[in-house]
Amino acid sequence: MKTIGVVARAGLTEARPVLRELVSWLAERNVAVLLEQETARLLDEGPLPGTAPGHELAARVDALLVLGGDGTLLAAAQLLVDHPVPVLGVNFGSLGFLTEIALPELFPALEDLLADRYRSEERRMLRAVVKRPGQPDVTRDVLNDVVINKTAFSRIVELAVELDGQFVSVFRADGLIVSSPTGSTAYNLAAGGPILHPTLPAIALTPICPHMLTNRPLVIDDSAQVRVKLRDSREVEVHISFDGQHGIRLSEEDEVVVSRSPRSLRLVRAPARDYFEVLRAKLKWGESSARQRSR
Amino acid sequence: MKTIGVVARAGLTEARPVLRELVSWLAERNVAVLLEQETARLLDEGPLPGTAPGHELAARVDALLVLGGDGTLLAAAQLLVDHPVPVLGVNFGSLGFLTEIALPELFPALEDLLADRYRSEERRMLRAVVKRPGQPDVTRDVLNDVVINKTAFSRIVELAVELDGQFVSVFRADGLIVSSPTGSTAYNLAAGGPILHPTLPAIALTPICPHMLTNRPLVIDDSAQVRVKLRDSREVEVHISFDGQHGIRLSEEDEVVVSRSPRSLRLVRAPARDYFEVLRAKLKWGESSARQRSR
Amino acid sequence: MKTIGVVARAGLTEARPVLRELVSWLAERNVAVLLEQETARLLDEGPLPGTAPGHELAARVDALLVLGGDGTLLAAAQLLVDHPVPVLGVNFGSLGFLTEIALPELFPALEDLLADRYRSEERRMLRAVVKRPGQPDVTRDVLNDVVINKTAFSRIVELAVELDGQFVSVFRADGLIVSSPTGSTAYNLAAGGPILHPTLPAIALTPICPHMLTNRPLVIDDSAQVRVKLRDSREVEVHISFDGQHGIRLSEEDEVVVSRSPRSLRLVRAPARDYFEVLRAKLKWGESSARQRSR
Amino acid sequence: MKTIGVVARAGLTEARPVLRELVSWLAERNVAVLLEQETARLLDEGPLPGTAPGHELAARVDALLVLGGDGTLLAAAQLLVDHPVPVLGVNFGSLGFLTEIALPELFPALEDLLADRYRSEERRMLRAVVKRPGQPDVTRDVLNDVVINKTAFSRIVELAVELDGQFVSVFRADGLIVSSPTGSTAYNLAAGGPILHPTLPAIALTPICPHMLTNRPLVIDDSAQVRVKLRDSREVEVHISFDGQHGIRLSEEDEVVVSRSPRSLRLVRAPARDYFEVLRAKLKWGESSARQRSR
Repeated sequence: MKTIGVVARAGLTEARPVLRELVSWLAERNVAVLLEQETARLLDEGPLPGTAPGHELAARVDALLVLGGDGTLLAAAQLLVDHPVPVLGVNFGSLGFLTEIALPELFPALEDLLADRYRSEERRMLRAVVKRPGQPDVTRDVLNDVVINKTAFSRIVELAVELDGQFVSVFRADGLIVSSPTGSTAYNLAAGGPILHPTLPAIALTPICPHMLTNRPLVIDDSAQVRVKLRDSREVEVHISFDGQHGIRLSEEDEVVVSRSPRSLRLVRAPARDYFEVLRAKLKWGESSARQRSR
Repeated sequence: MKTIGVVARAGLTEARPVLRELVSWLAERNVAVLLEQETARLLDEGPLPGTAPGHELAARVDALLVLGGDGTLLAAAQLLVDHPVPVLGVNFGSLGFLTEIALPELFPALEDLLADRYRSEERRMLRAVVKRPGQPDVTRDVLNDVVINKTAFSRIVELAVELDGQFVSVFRADGLIVSSPTGSTAYNLAAGGPILHPTLPAIALTPICPHMLTNRPLVIDDSAQVRVKLRDSREVEVHISFDGQHGIRLSEEDEVVVSRSPRSLRLVRAPARDYFEVLRAKLKWGESSARQRSR
Repeated sequence: MKTIGVVARAGLTEARPVLRELVSWLAERNVAVLLEQETARLLDEGPLPGTAPGHELAARVDALLVLGGDGTLLAAAQLLVDHPVPVLGVNFGSLGFLTEIALPELFPALEDLLADRYRSEERRMLRAVVKRPGQPDVTRDVLNDVVINKTAFSRIVELAVELDGQFVSVFRADGLIVSSPTGSTAYNLAAGGPILHPTLPAIALTPICPHMLTNRPLVIDDSAQVRVKLRDSREVEVHISFDGQHGIRLSEEDEVVVSRSPRSLRLVRAPARDYFEVLRAKLKWGESSARQRSR
Repeated sequence: MKTIGVVARAGLTEARPVLRELVSWLAERNVAVLLEQETARLLDEGPLPGTAPGHELAARVDALLVLGGDGTLLAAAQLLVDHPVPVLGVNFGSLGFLTEIALPELFPALEDLLADRYRSEERRMLRAVVKRPGQPDVTRDVLNDVVINKTAFSRIVELAVELDGQFVSVFRADGLIVSSPTGSTAYNLAAGGPILHPTLPAIALTPICPHMLTNRPLVIDDSAQVRVKLRDSREVEVHISFDGQHGIRLSEEDEVVVSRSPRSLRLVRAPARDYFEVLRAKLKWGESSARQRSR
């Protein structure tokens, strides 16, 4: 580990003292720091380490440190698709599914990282290809989900879904979530989808508010290719978004193909925290609730 | 009953022969017909009965006949707010919750209507008032629901809800449905809300894909006043729609107040069909299903 | 207020010091205490106040104090059906929907009660009548719910439901919950039913794991009479339970009729706590969750 | 294919003519028939083919024909655990998930089977081991699910779940379903679990009416070992059942271990029917529904 890259959430001024400390802490250990350009702005005075624009960052570092929340890490995952260095997510605020390292754990975790004592997990990504007649394909790799969604004024969208060429159904709904195991605890869960263990080689297809009450979430093998086509959507405005961050409008002739991406994200785990511990904390399973034992 | 008004779904050419038959059938019984202007276009030749623009129609008729589906009747309900004459919904296609009269039942039902032998139901409406600083209030009466919804690209909306001045919660969700009993089997059901019997004096508040999994549908007395305010919505585009048909964009200072409307809709019931029969047919309760008795 | 009755959860030894304090605190104010017999056992030594068996208690007191949890209060509600004196629920453990008064609030709340400054709420009860051929009817008043449930080994139960003589459906399910608004946050919520505001004059009918996925919870006016009959239940063992506490086995010829009870419970409210505050605390709405704002 | 075994649902008198026809149809093709003993009783007169008790049947045949419904096939699957010959499920009544061959398709399907032209699917089974102190283990292989369930009178059960030694959570619920992909459309679906594609190497853990509303279904890799222990269950009666057919009572010291079974079922597919076709038919996805397009 010769160079560590750092990305912080835009405007995260609380990260300033940590950034300063990081720079000197790594310098002491003869490790270079490379700050993402926007992140460098947080350090308005004092000696500045090297900086790089986001799209160059991953190519020049041996690991990436993300300061912020799950949204910051999702955005940073886009920077890593061609250079999958290990990424360490530090949450500023509450525990995240992806940013499970708390601030007090940052330096011990870095110590382990430099000493090559860390545990990491390969998180599979999905690849969405939007095929549009007469236009170049739009291809995106996502860590969480691909969401096809009607806009607020449209009544309903009809989505014809095929799996490896086999017709599944036409979903009449507000939209459809195609989620990776990592994304299963995000929008998918809010829409009624199941929790998929992060190592499961699966994809969840979860319709959003389907008008057909029997249209339940469907979990398939991630070796399958999911093909989605709009049906009868003249009056409907439909968008597709990638990890909840970027999006484009779909038109009726477009086709969306989702399959397992050749990319994946190498997520550094917190030294003393397993998946279910994070799950219990985030979903408050460890606490009492409505129908509790109250004799 | 001296005059019957008729509204058909725009472009419903299958209604043409029925319209012709209606005109002569009513003429034989000395009942005048008044066609809504757009509906009259369906009759491109032959003798034309009187016509009126939609907004004048209700004031000039003793009952309104709606040909189409539930969406057509929802739109027609807007024409009736100031003149609540009985409305008879005839479905072209499958049985509707509001258009429960099938085509073969039309003339027997009309016979009963003219002879004053019909059963009707008072369907309560909700009134939504959008209060906007520096602008006149927008007021709408709805039969089904008031829906506050984020657009496709926005991540989440935060809605602070009060009931009669009492703070309920801040819902972080895709949106919120405020539904009447009549609307409970529409969007509310798709979003996980309960079925409310049409005579129940209640309002359902159903969050759409709430990120907090314990944010469950809440049913309140319809004497209560529901107040909804956007929170922290600088980056979010939020819309409000009325019966899924009209809508406006909300801004952060706006406030939406929903309460029972003084208006209601007088719905003529099919002679030989009760509420649960329609419910069973629409939700296919009468048929077998996944976990059926299969020994 | 001349006499206050006290019931504690069986074996609640933590209540001992409070009981002692109560006895002297009330004596100072010239108010008599009457302990339910089992509760009196908690006071193994020292001067003992008057005691009475549970079924005599309510007739001899002006208000009832319940120490324990919601389950203790549900059981105590049975003692009050013929003598609906105000009841004050004090939770030992976490906040309850019915026992919303915390221990530190007990004496201030009692002060208000004696001074007639308290707020109370009329909580409607339901009455279940089990009609069994050749046997006397079994009648029970419940505060929360009537639950008809198959036993663990039975595959499924078929329940034919009628509302005021109108056929609703045959539910094929693990069972059926007939819940009051007060009970809506108990078992009903766990089975997917909605939250009903406690003042709503309604009954929720919630099938438990229905095999027909469109069999959704149904909310009806509490002036209606619900009639439930077993169907085709030769091989199935079915039980009915009342407030989760007592139960009997049903046989195929039995009929269960549920309607609003003439009884109700007068629940003393915590001075500074409204319904939604309790709801937010119990369902943790005030806290962050899975799909939280994590940028 | 020299010998075909046949099992019919007990008392399925409608199967009599088919059985007769089968016997002669197979005789013409020089294929022997072996009827399960109980099934043979349906043929009360005329020439009787060979018979065998259920537990001997599979060892002596090259394929098994099941006449009845999914329940009949689930029971028959138990006969096949040691001799996994292909099984062909013929439904008497409506289409089944496991018995997807309709009566008119029986002989063409048999023709294909004898000619070795059939498609079949390996359906993974789960193995449940109940470990009881001082008693021999109880081991069962199931095709659908292992269900741990409280009885009707018990309030709630607490189940501590571990995955490969990692603590997952304590579920407070009516029970827990551990389901294979094949079982995912049975009880699991009724309890709110997702549909798992039959080829997915996964297990669904679905709590039944959990009191903690965030206890959502969890899908894990089927290479994992699930360990379930009762907690604090002195007053609770808890049972475990296997494919909804057999069951035993659990006591507090017992432990249930579920993992992928080394056994699987070879299910013969209908010639012209794929998985999604069956799914659409069973869940009625191909038809309209509540919130349908009704303009």
